Amino acid sequence: MERKAANRAQCFVTRPRWPSPARASNPCSNPRLAGERALCGVCFESEEGVRNAGKDSNCPGRILYSGRVSKRELYLLQKAHQEASRASWLMTAPNPKVGALALKEGHIVGRGFHEAFGGPHAEEAALIDAGAWDEAKDCPLPGVVDEIVVTLEPCSSEGGEKQRQPCVQLLLDAGVTRLLVGAVDPDLRHQSAGLKLFAESGVEVVQVEGGQEMFEELNPAFLQALSHDARPWVLLKWAASLDGKTATDSGESQWLSSEDSREEVHQLRSLPGAILVGYGTLVHDNPALSARPSGVPAINQPLRVFLLPDGQIPSTATAWNVPGKRLWVLAEGQKPCSALVEREGEEDQVFFVPTLPDGKLSLEPLFAYLRQGRGIRRLLVEGGPKTQASCLQEGLADALVRYEAPLLIGGHMGSILGGGVDHPRFGIRLLCEERKAFGEDLRRAFLLQRPGFHSIPE
Amino acid sequence: MERKAANRAQCFVTRPRWPSPARASNPCSNPRLAGERALCGVCFESEEGVRNAGKDSNCPGRILYSGRVSKRELYLLQKAHQEASRASWLMTAPNPKVGALALKEGHIVGRGFHEAFGGPHAEEAALIDAGAWDEAKDCPLPGVVDEIVVTLEPCSSEGGEKQRQPCVQLLLDAGVTRLLVGAVDPDLRHQSAGLKLFAESGVEVVQVEGGQEMFEELNPAFLQALSHDARPWVLLKWAASLDGKTATDSGESQWLSSEDSREEVHQLRSLPGAILVGYGTLVHDNPALSARPSGVPAINQPLRVFLLPDGQIPSTATAWNVPGKRLWVLAEGQKPCSALVEREGEEDQVFFVPTLPDGKLSLEPLFAYLRQGRGIRRLLVEGGPKTQASCLQEGLADALVRYEAPLLIGGHMGSILGGGVDHPRFGIRLLCEERKAFGEDLRRAFLLQRPGFHSIPE
Repeated sequence: MERKAANRAQCFVTRPRWPSPARASNPCSNPRLAGERALCGVCFESEEGVRNAGKDSNCPGRILYSGRVSKRELYLLQKAHQEASRASWLMTAPNPKVGALALKEGHIVGRGFHEAFGGPHAEEAALIDAGAWDEAKDCPLPGVVDEIVVTLEPCSSEGGEKQRQPCVQLLLDAGVTRLLVGAVDPDLRHQSAGLKLFAESGVEVVQVEGGQEMFEELNPAFLQALSHDARPWVLLKWAASLDGKTATDSGESQWLSSEDSREEVHQLRSLPGAILVGYGTLVHDNPALSARPSGVPAINQPLRVFLLPDGQIPSTATAWNVPGKRLWVLAEGQKPCSALVEREGEEDQVFFVPTLPDGKLSLEPLFAYLRQGRGIRRLLVEGGPKTQASCLQEGLADALVRYEAPLLIGGHMGSILGGGVDHPRFGIRLLCEERKAFGEDLRRAFLLQRPGFHSIPE
Repeated sequence: MERKAANRAQCFVTRPRWPSPARASNPCSNPRLAGERALCGVCFESEEGVRNAGKDSNCPGRILYSGRVSKRELYLLQKAHQEASRASWLMTAPNPKVGALALKEGHIVGRGFHEAFGGPHAEEAALIDAGAWDEAKDCPLPGVVDEIVVTLEPCSSEGGEKQRQPCVQLLLDAGVTRLLVGAVDPDLRHQSAGLKLFAESGVEVVQVEGGQEMFEELNPAFLQALSHDARPWVLLKWAASLDGKTATDSGESQWLSSEDSREEVHQLRSLPGAILVGYGTLVHDNPALSARPSGVPAINQPLRVFLLPDGQIPSTATAWNVPGKRLWVLAEGQKPCSALVEREGEEDQVFFVPTLPDGKLSLEPLFAYLRQGRGIRRLLVEGGPKTQASCLQEGLADALVRYEAPLLIGGHMGSILGGGVDHPRFGIRLLCEERKAFGEDLRRAFLLQRPGFHSIPE
């Protein structure tokens, strides 16, 4: 009951059921027996029941899979799940919402969750909460914690936006001897890799039945991002008045939203990734697009991406004068303006894309380059309305966040201008709301049931 | 504390302070002493303190005004105020939110509030709740209740949208001998009239200090409506997708909103008053505009008002074929189509208004006619976006209600199209939100801080 209540606070509407990669195929590349289903990469299930690899002399360690876990173990996993429910997909995606408990001799001594993309994982947060962290050396203190409960198997890889050691290493360094885990990683590239490492190190690993379902139910945004790895997870963001306008007809938009809303936008910008704006926004809003949460420039600034169809940059553009990496996107065949040619180098790069039949820049090759060429996993599209519409026209959007001010301003500057469907029943349904008040504004964030207007309606 | 919590549920943002007519001038037409302030129409306050008319041989009854009411009396008024807080201005305006308790020998035996414009007043609801109502004869049962606590003085007039006897008469018929009242009626035409009638009938009347402020704080919509009596209280209503669109570019809008949202719209339509739509809505949406709460046609159908700039009615218009009263609004000098000339009579009437410089029909004379010529006190404007914009351009709107579907449909059909301000800081601020979920939709209703775009920004 408690868990359900926590879920409701996060998720107002029905959750979608994205196809789970873990279910889509056999997660084990080398099943040792035909007819068996890999459970955790080491243990298998057949019609005769679970084959406990821990008792198998061929098994490197003691990974247990049990449908008969004790009430206490189920309770612990549910507590960890509650921690996970405190997270917000708006902040963690494309990463999942994960929660963890740290135990010592059976007592819960710490708890934590993965709060933001690029930030500490749940296991590290729980270790820190338990006092099992050496602040001076920035590494785990051994002996404070002996058991970890976590809703998803700990990560085993390094690199990307993660600036920390893999959690497997952190937990081994902390002296953890037992791991209670909810789900294996649905990402086939990492699935069970963490559990195997624990098993090889002699850590007792127990996976709780039902943990996979609990994890997946809580993580539609993560599964959605996992279903397309050729481009970043794309979040459309705008601020609007209650009549759906993002600016007055004279082009004024600063500021529609409250200071509190804008503070959250700075937090969103400070997550690892990139920000995209169209030419109209560059000219009319003239944004710096820097991340300044609490007014202080963030250490990691996002890559700023500007659509510049004709290659000309307004000389007064603020973004031009604020240091940081920029990507200027031009139509193939266009010549960059001389200022851009001069500046091209470490900070400023130019990328060419084809134009679509309607004359707009094609975003798909840009997004593919961002993911594959620049390692960008999360992209914030800050407008304007035509650029948002382009993302939806090309089927490239995953989620949206809108800050709504209690204000009427009239005029014609809607929040997504162009594209569109022929009938409301073909509209893109919005799911998994995360709603929050910011000053007088109401922020509503949603996942998109499909990535664009022209995808096949469901 | 309890009262504050109840208020919060109704009102998310700061309440406006409309000028209170009761404070604007001396409510007594014949103050008996210069320098005195009328308190309840019979009792007066001077620098020497309250002159208690109950002890004055010239006073017709025993109206007491006391700053020294007992704790119990204050508690009772607060309980009645809690009842009032359960009401919604969206349903009661231009009437106030009023709550009442019915007591017998000091015990609370019934409670009630004014739920909807045109429906039973709070006092009647409390009598019914107390069992002090003869269902067969549809009148009060005497002897069940001896005291009434009510946040606003009981009404003493008949007529208008109210289909019941005045509350003063109901309470006297019920045998009430004591009345604890929060506020006198801020409407100068009725102020203290009810209290005088009670006093003349020998009922003990006590007004609790602070009751006026409590009442006014809870009733900005009522005070707003009271500040302009030359036109109805005007509520703009629309349903939109999350990208602020009321229809696809192809004109399809049925149905953007959920069944539950549409059910509330039928409830809004079934309140006494009129509904207005523009020509575009008549042609594209082709609405019946009838009130069918729970699928059953309401007994009292609203007056339907259609803007018909060139006098031509599409022959396929559903509204044309659904019985009920209609008002067709034409530009001065236009000739009604032959079908309209034929039908003009009891059900269908034609009204001519001048056109504005931009060619649109002028709504101000229409609204004045509705109030003064047809006795309409509440007008629901159901669109389309240009008609909503016209109301705001002419400064004729009081409130809005928007049903938002979790859907993206794209295109250009915004919810208020045209007019508008030059800068967000001149936008019309929205206040006193009433928010509610209807299925997957979110309904947000607001009062407008000023009635249109061109009023002086505050």
